[in-house]
Amino acid sequence: MIMGKIALLGTGSWGTALGLVLADNNEEVMMWSHREEAALEINEQHRNHKYLPDIVLPERLRATSSIQEVLSGANIVILAVPTKAIREVIGQINQYLTQPVIVVHVSKGIEPETNKRISEIIAEAMDSTLVSAIVALSGPSHAEEVCRRMPTTLTAASTDIVAAQTVQNAFSNLNLRVYTHDDIIGTEIGGALKNIIALGAGISDGLGNGDNAKAALITRGMREIIRLGDAVGADEGTFSGLTGIGDLIVTCTSQHSRNWRTGYRLGKGETLEEVLESVGMIVEGVRTTKAVYLWSKELEVSMPITTAIYGILYEGKDPQVAVDELMGRQKKSEY
Amino acid sequence: MIMGKIALLGTGSWGTALGLVLADNNEEVMMWSHREEAALEINEQHRNHKYLPDIVLPERLRATSSIQEVLSGANIVILAVPTKAIREVIGQINQYLTQPVIVVHVSKGIEPETNKRISEIIAEAMDSTLVSAIVALSGPSHAEEVCRRMPTTLTAASTDIVAAQTVQNAFSNLNLRVYTHDDIIGTEIGGALKNIIALGAGISDGLGNGDNAKAALITRGMREIIRLGDAVGADEGTFSGLTGIGDLIVTCTSQHSRNWRTGYRLGKGETLEEVLESVGMIVEGVRTTKAVYLWSKELEVSMPITTAIYGILYEGKDPQVAVDELMGRQKKSEY
Repeated sequence: MIMGKIALLGTGSWGTALGLVLADNNEEVMMWSHREEAALEINEQHRNHKYLPDIVLPERLRATSSIQEVLSGANIVILAVPTKAIREVIGQINQYLTQPVIVVHVSKGIEPETNKRISEIIAEAMDSTLVSAIVALSGPSHAEEVCRRMPTTLTAASTDIVAAQTVQNAFSNLNLRVYTHDDIIGTEIGGALKNIIALGAGISDGLGNGDNAKAALITRGMREIIRLGDAVGADEGTFSGLTGIGDLIVTCTSQHSRNWRTGYRLGKGETLEEVLESVGMIVEGVRTTKAVYLWSKELEVSMPITTAIYGILYEGKDPQVAVDELMGRQKKSEY
Repeated sequence: MIMGKIALLGTGSWGTALGLVLADNNEEVMMWSHREEAALEINEQHRNHKYLPDIVLPERLRATSSIQEVLSGANIVILAVPTKAIREVIGQINQYLTQPVIVVHVSKGIEPETNKRISEIIAEAMDSTLVSAIVALSGPSHAEEVCRRMPTTLTAASTDIVAAQTVQNAFSNLNLRVYTHDDIIGTEIGGALKNIIALGAGISDGLGNGDNAKAALITRGMREIIRLGDAVGADEGTFSGLTGIGDLIVTCTSQHSRNWRTGYRLGKGETLEEVLESVGMIVEGVRTTKAVYLWSKELEVSMPITTAIYGILYEGKDPQVAVDELMGRQKKSEY
């Protein structure tokens, strides 16, 4: 399946996994890293030791540290960089694009203060004559498993359904099943807010609570994500899909998840500063919790679990006290 | 909180856990077992070795093997027996009830051939003058964790919301948060069909697939449960709640689950006969898969995952071939 040239920006674990898939599919893909040594390692050793130490990459997967080289002639641009870096990377893109592109993003977050979703940031920051469509690619997917060609599903969401199908075609193979969907708002809200609940799931596990508590947290957490989604124009149905509950489940029940691990250590009694210092990578959920907590106040959406996690992260609230308060609230109807 | 006399029929793991909660709450509860030694063990040793070997029961939790004794004066009857035994147990109830009762059931299944939900079986089999309301109590809950007083949530569902609140009041405490809901159809469909998907999750894990595959299976499995629910009058929203996705998550991600374990062994290559023989307990999902597979044909509801699991259980289909077929279907939209 030949899509033309695909520029893949970012060589973290997920970007690299997606590059591997595209190489497996014989697409013309080139990766970009701002670190020259990362690009060299991919080209010469076919490795990404920092993020995927056990994976050998396909030889035909190439990388560069030149943003001009990666973008020249591209008709699909995939942004696989942390939410925090999106605006900065886009700032380097506009001048080098040679034609309008489909922009695919795989980041998960909400911009603090503006409360913008990633596709809104892209639409705002990019030269609009150079963007033919924006697609969010999301779903329950550990990068390691994708690199091992284990069965995985994703959803390509866009208001431009033809663009979503183009992305579906580029990534689909017998290990990776890609669905299309038209609700990019719900897809992005689900992807961002799951990291808050994953922190909570880690906290619950760290406190020594069990599977019952975690399933309750995931389910009730999803209800408050749905409430916020409703308030900003998402389709409720999206949250019962792969980019909603599917991604939430994988993030909350797997010890691979950076957000879960952070929460787990908080539940065991470490402080946020201690944990973040030793993790040394971005923990999206920590930023997202603050952004969404403030956003929910503004929108007047009730989010008791997010509020409790905000309290633990930013106000020094004792995790056990937070759980007791959630369990002891007034008896109510589920809906 | 005093509810009057509560008769709890069944001393399996879940029935016993609920008895423990009611005893903790100082309710007047009596359990019934058809096996006299089970009743004696509860009364004299405060134990239920067969189902909950590590749990010491409250001394005030009493049991009897006399159905007349347990029912005399009761105003709430809790049915905590396997789906298969419901009609037989109800056959013994009618003659001993001394007043109309709220019937609470905690069973999860669909009756083969009739395709009846548990509350429909109850309404059909019981003397209607003796039933004031029927409530389904369901949610993500391993019995062991409830017995250890670990945080757990449940939903009491009934078209009679006052009866649902009565059940909420009887069971609620600081460890167990009970919500009410009015959609008993969706609650019972979710509870029954989750066991099919749990078999599938076990099969997937047994084959060596990962978290991505399992999250996809849970999510896509829930979509087909929703489709069947729609066809029989359930509220779609119920499936995003505790008795839907919540219970599904706990059943699919925990190795405590009998259905998951059965699937796991099938995925590892054992035959259904071998597994069932050595489990020695009822695996509800095996019966439910057959009932729902046939029901879905009748209703013309597409259920590809249920169909694949039916093929593995009853037609000797190779599990890996079934997974490959699910992954390789025609590309489509998620909704």
